[in-house]
Amino acid sequence: MVREPAFALILAGGGGTRLWPASRRTRPKQLLTLGGPESLLAATHRRLRASFEADRILVVTAADQAEGVRAALPALPTQNLVIEPAARNTAAAVGLGTVHVARRAGDNATVAVFPADHHIADETSFAAAVGLALAHAPEAIVTIGLRPTHPETGFGYIQRGPGVAPGVHAVARFVEKPTVEKAAAYVAGGEHLWNAGMFFFTTGALLAAARTHLPDLGRALDQLRAADDLTAAERSLYPAVPAISIDHGIMEKAGGLRVVPASFGWNDVGSWAALGAIRALDDRGNVVAGDTVVKESRGSIVLGEPGAPLVAVLGADDLVVVATRDAVLVTRKDRAQDVRTVVDALSAAGRKELL
Amino acid sequence: MVREPAFALILAGGGGTRLWPASRRTRPKQLLTLGGPESLLAATHRRLRASFEADRILVVTAADQAEGVRAALPALPTQNLVIEPAARNTAAAVGLGTVHVARRAGDNATVAVFPADHHIADETSFAAAVGLALAHAPEAIVTIGLRPTHPETGFGYIQRGPGVAPGVHAVARFVEKPTVEKAAAYVAGGEHLWNAGMFFFTTGALLAAARTHLPDLGRALDQLRAADDLTAAERSLYPAVPAISIDHGIMEKAGGLRVVPASFGWNDVGSWAALGAIRALDDRGNVVAGDTVVKESRGSIVLGEPGAPLVAVLGADDLVVVATRDAVLVTRKDRAQDVRTVVDALSAAGRKELL
Repeated sequence: MVREPAFALILAGGGGTRLWPASRRTRPKQLLTLGGPESLLAATHRRLRASFEADRILVVTAADQAEGVRAALPALPTQNLVIEPAARNTAAAVGLGTVHVARRAGDNATVAVFPADHHIADETSFAAAVGLALAHAPEAIVTIGLRPTHPETGFGYIQRGPGVAPGVHAVARFVEKPTVEKAAAYVAGGEHLWNAGMFFFTTGALLAAARTHLPDLGRALDQLRAADDLTAAERSLYPAVPAISIDHGIMEKAGGLRVVPASFGWNDVGSWAALGAIRALDDRGNVVAGDTVVKESRGSIVLGEPGAPLVAVLGADDLVVVATRDAVLVTRKDRAQDVRTVVDALSAAGRKELL
Repeated sequence: MVREPAFALILAGGGGTRLWPASRRTRPKQLLTLGGPESLLAATHRRLRASFEADRILVVTAADQAEGVRAALPALPTQNLVIEPAARNTAAAVGLGTVHVARRAGDNATVAVFPADHHIADETSFAAAVGLALAHAPEAIVTIGLRPTHPETGFGYIQRGPGVAPGVHAVARFVEKPTVEKAAAYVAGGEHLWNAGMFFFTTGALLAAARTHLPDLGRALDQLRAADDLTAAERSLYPAVPAISIDHGIMEKAGGLRVVPASFGWNDVGSWAALGAIRALDDRGNVVAGDTVVKESRGSIVLGEPGAPLVAVLGADDLVVVATRDAVLVTRKDRAQDVRTVVDALSAAGRKELL
């Protein structure tokens, strides 16, 4: 059987307080140009063009981020921009996008889900892994698992089971974020892979899994699938669906999943410190961009956004300095994952204009 | 003989690149509010009001700083603002101010010279030292020497000689900025005092010393003293006088000087790090002012000027972070004296708007 070309769903509804002050409520991480000249979202979309037809790449986003998505992807067809009426986490977002595909292409359409805000260095290897996962999606829900390069405690892991085909394994189980000891054992053992939130399935399989594992969501998705006026139905039904991640709500409970182990320089850009891994460094190991003067400093991240004051850094190592028009962040690279502390303080102080 | 009240000359022509980005060519250090609510210049003027009549306090400044001086001292009589037609260092500036006093009050008027940009914590002790120095000025050129509190290598020292009156010594010699070993010996020995650039003399004595030790300057000052049109004479004569400091040009060569040893919490505010000594600290030893959020940081100086972006500092110790509307400086406290490196780089890059 010759299958129809597959659809891609880009999940672009995230926040990203860890990249404050560049990231804000209406300018989340995926809209920032962190990895190079493109925004992470635009890079994700361009990368997927190697595996998907342009009119089959959909973006699911939040209402207050839709304008930013349109600006980042001006060629995106209007019907391919799926706007969540409320933020209900990824199980609902994936379900909503899947309903949009099912209404266009039926229950046997193949769908692949990708976060909008990750960086991938080796796009050829990425495309190969996507192709392999798509090939198995008609038979099972498939995920891509990244071979871990260090004992990361900030990610969930996937333990692979027996091989089911060349380059494809059964999923033994999903594992929560581990302690550093467990993470080290996972890296050494070779059976555990990073869960990067990429999933491949048919529309029918995802909707069935939702019915089984999240019946309230499954029922709402079925109603959306059958609705005469989809937009009206979304407005009335979507805000009431359970807010849970696709990992916790469906994937960890579903059986028979498969995983494609892969290595393609994946980075979730989880904090400013990640820029040292995905951007070009100067000869002292600094990442420097924008209107800046950096003297006698090593291993620092120094960024000035357009409209920001000049940033001058002298004799300071392993710092993060990020300036925007209205805010400047200074922290140590090893504290970059704690930027939420600042955002929370601003929120508590009522500084909405800076959030 | 009952003497006329003395005059004060405030030297307010300095630059202060070490306090960039707050200090700029047209907004030098003395115009910044570094020690509290007042600018250093306004604090100097207010402090001198305890010892001098308001209409006898003159300010000598550069043409491009005159507007800032007028704004900082709105009550300053117009005739008490002496504007240098060109920058010719402190020997010339003191000579020019002395000529203005001599034309008003003759050759026997007492004059005291003070830098505009120092911070003094104990104003009562300062006034006592000034009173003692003024009392001796009719007989000799007098200076105030600060008892050193640490082996500072950035200042010149004055070695005191035998006592000539209670609290007053002969000056044995002026000493250049020492090595740290010599500075430590000076502190231990008890005979050496910091040269803070404060001098007391009669108009006649200063003009005579200029004639003796800087004859080109002395001649120009005599011509200014006698000129019918002082402003025109200043314009034609002043730019050609030798540019040398009053210390090197006159005081180190003159004999018979006296020194009043004193301790009054003197600080020359030579770099951002000095703010830790002259401003209130929070309970973690930070100096914090302006629109800032400082979390989990110790011993840092974090300043946001009006109009600057919010400054957020997280988990960073012993840093200097200073934000203005158009520039942000980040450096370590122990590198704060090297801020000129940044200013030089901006100058080389043609960024005049930031200088």
